[in-house]
Amino acid sequence: MTQIDLKTAVGILKDNDNYLILTHKNPDGDTLGSAFALMYALRSLGKSAKVQCCDKIPKKYSYMYSPDDIGETDSPYVIAVDVADEKLLGNGVYDRYQGKVKLCIDHHISNKGYAEYLLLRDCAAACEVIYDLIGILGVKIDKKIADCIYTGISTDTGCFKFANVTDYTHIIAAGLISAGADFVEINKAMFETKSRGYFLLEAAAVNTIEMYNGGKCAVMTITQKMLHASGTDESDCDGIASIPRKIEGVLVGVTLRERTDGTYKVSLRSHAPVDCTKICGEMGGGGHARAAGCEFSRENLEKEKAQLLAIITRELDSI
Amino acid sequence: MTQIDLKTAVGILKDNDNYLILTHKNPDGDTLGSAFALMYALRSLGKSAKVQCCDKIPKKYSYMYSPDDIGETDSPYVIAVDVADEKLLGNGVYDRYQGKVKLCIDHHISNKGYAEYLLLRDCAAACEVIYDLIGILGVKIDKKIADCIYTGISTDTGCFKFANVTDYTHIIAAGLISAGADFVEINKAMFETKSRGYFLLEAAAVNTIEMYNGGKCAVMTITQKMLHASGTDESDCDGIASIPRKIEGVLVGVTLRERTDGTYKVSLRSHAPVDCTKICGEMGGGGHARAAGCEFSRENLEKEKAQLLAIITRELDSI
Repeated sequence: MTQIDLKTAVGILKDNDNYLILTHKNPDGDTLGSAFALMYALRSLGKSAKVQCCDKIPKKYSYMYSPDDIGETDSPYVIAVDVADEKLLGNGVYDRYQGKVKLCIDHHISNKGYAEYLLLRDCAAACEVIYDLIGILGVKIDKKIADCIYTGISTDTGCFKFANVTDYTHIIAAGLISAGADFVEINKAMFETKSRGYFLLEAAAVNTIEMYNGGKCAVMTITQKMLHASGTDESDCDGIASIPRKIEGVLVGVTLRERTDGTYKVSLRSHAPVDCTKICGEMGGGGHARAAGCEFSRENLEKEKAQLLAIITRELDSI
Repeated sequence: MTQIDLKTAVGILKDNDNYLILTHKNPDGDTLGSAFALMYALRSLGKSAKVQCCDKIPKKYSYMYSPDDIGETDSPYVIAVDVADEKLLGNGVYDRYQGKVKLCIDHHISNKGYAEYLLLRDCAAACEVIYDLIGILGVKIDKKIADCIYTGISTDTGCFKFANVTDYTHIIAAGLISAGADFVEINKAMFETKSRGYFLLEAAAVNTIEMYNGGKCAVMTITQKMLHASGTDESDCDGIASIPRKIEGVLVGVTLRERTDGTYKVSLRSHAPVDCTKICGEMGGGGHARAAGCEFSRENLEKEKAQLLAIITRELDSI
């Protein structure tokens, strides 16, 4: 693996043709935005380019492409975007292209270095790297490309809220808006649209919230029964664990999610200075300071919950 | 009233002293961010400056100032920020300073021109004007000023989601982040924190949602009983009317809010091309294309609801 800079990457893209751009599995706005933006840019240089993803692309991203843009080509020059590990190419795609990725464009410092050439920058989104790359390629950022790149940046930063945002992230956003990015509609689709089932699940979950430690700790429970009643499943639960921490005065929010086998996935979210890793570590789990997790068994649920609450109480008392 | 440019405003601010900066009533992030940023900038020029607001400043903005910054001064040079109409200065402040505002800095094109000098730009937030003004004043934007201005811009744009955002809004955000604005904590406080009562109210409201027109119309009802049960009141309902439209597939979301007198406030929110003004206009109300409202009487609630749903059906069928 050779780590390369933007200029070298531009040379490679100009010298080759017949590109196949791979995204990671469970595709999100950044991997898709990177792939389609790069596809349009390469085509505007007269190259042929298609995108491949092992999973069905969620409907909300359909404005980025047309069905013809997805597919296979013979003896392609293979590029992976926003894919930190070859295995994340997912079923089918991983098997076919393992060891065959020539160029990887990424922003994860954890990138495994599986590609022949790696263009890596530690920044909020792979789309930030794609933006610079397209600029140096000499391709004008049109509305279509701007929509793709804006999507990647907006989704990977929670619409400019996360700590990964830098001044340069906003400079790029300014460039994309001048280029005509339809940011109002994109943000509506990404952040303001949820299934009816999700709303019902959220409502049921909120009604289970128990407050502890004078309002500094909130515990929310999601049971299999609630998932069934709302017509949702585990995959709809993304982000739901952030609810308890949003309650005014709460420093640590706990979400218990019952799995089909009766065990519980436990997610902690905190505000400073509460350290979730420390708390979850004592329960056999782990994670980051502001977000961590552990597990509760089926048999000892109440006992383990009491243990967790005792550790949380000790931590809150020590502040 | 004389409309002035940034340079003239800078001359005025350099020539005077003993500033009193007034915000509008029910203060939000933009009027407070503008006021405190300007206060700090004027003080760094050696001037004296205080801020006055007729209402109690919500706790979530407390990082912007210390209690000493609020108050009265004798024979002040009076500035109003983000105040489109003198009456919006509110009880007490309006009575005292009516006809006495020397300089108004605003971004509402509807500004009534009540001040001697008006510095006005049609942009997302008054804080955008304040940012430029402070730059031309020659004051360095430090972390404190950056926090204030970022708050105004972020709150008035729904964290860069609203249609009022321009490329320049992001250019300013980039400048504020380089200056050290604590955007992660600010956005957490502004967008990610709600009272427990609000969550309970939202949960109760979501459970009332009825779907019509094959899922294109959603109707949500909030009763006085639900407000009481959740310990909330009308003032907690800001933004709740946006929920029905967020449901996947919904083109028009209707929220019915029971008032204490038994009448109903009806709020419509739509996605293009559904025109809420047209629909509400036929019910005796009004508003904008994507957000409008009308009223239902206490006696004819069901009849009026049926009328509204018939109009919505006609509009949805005509798309």
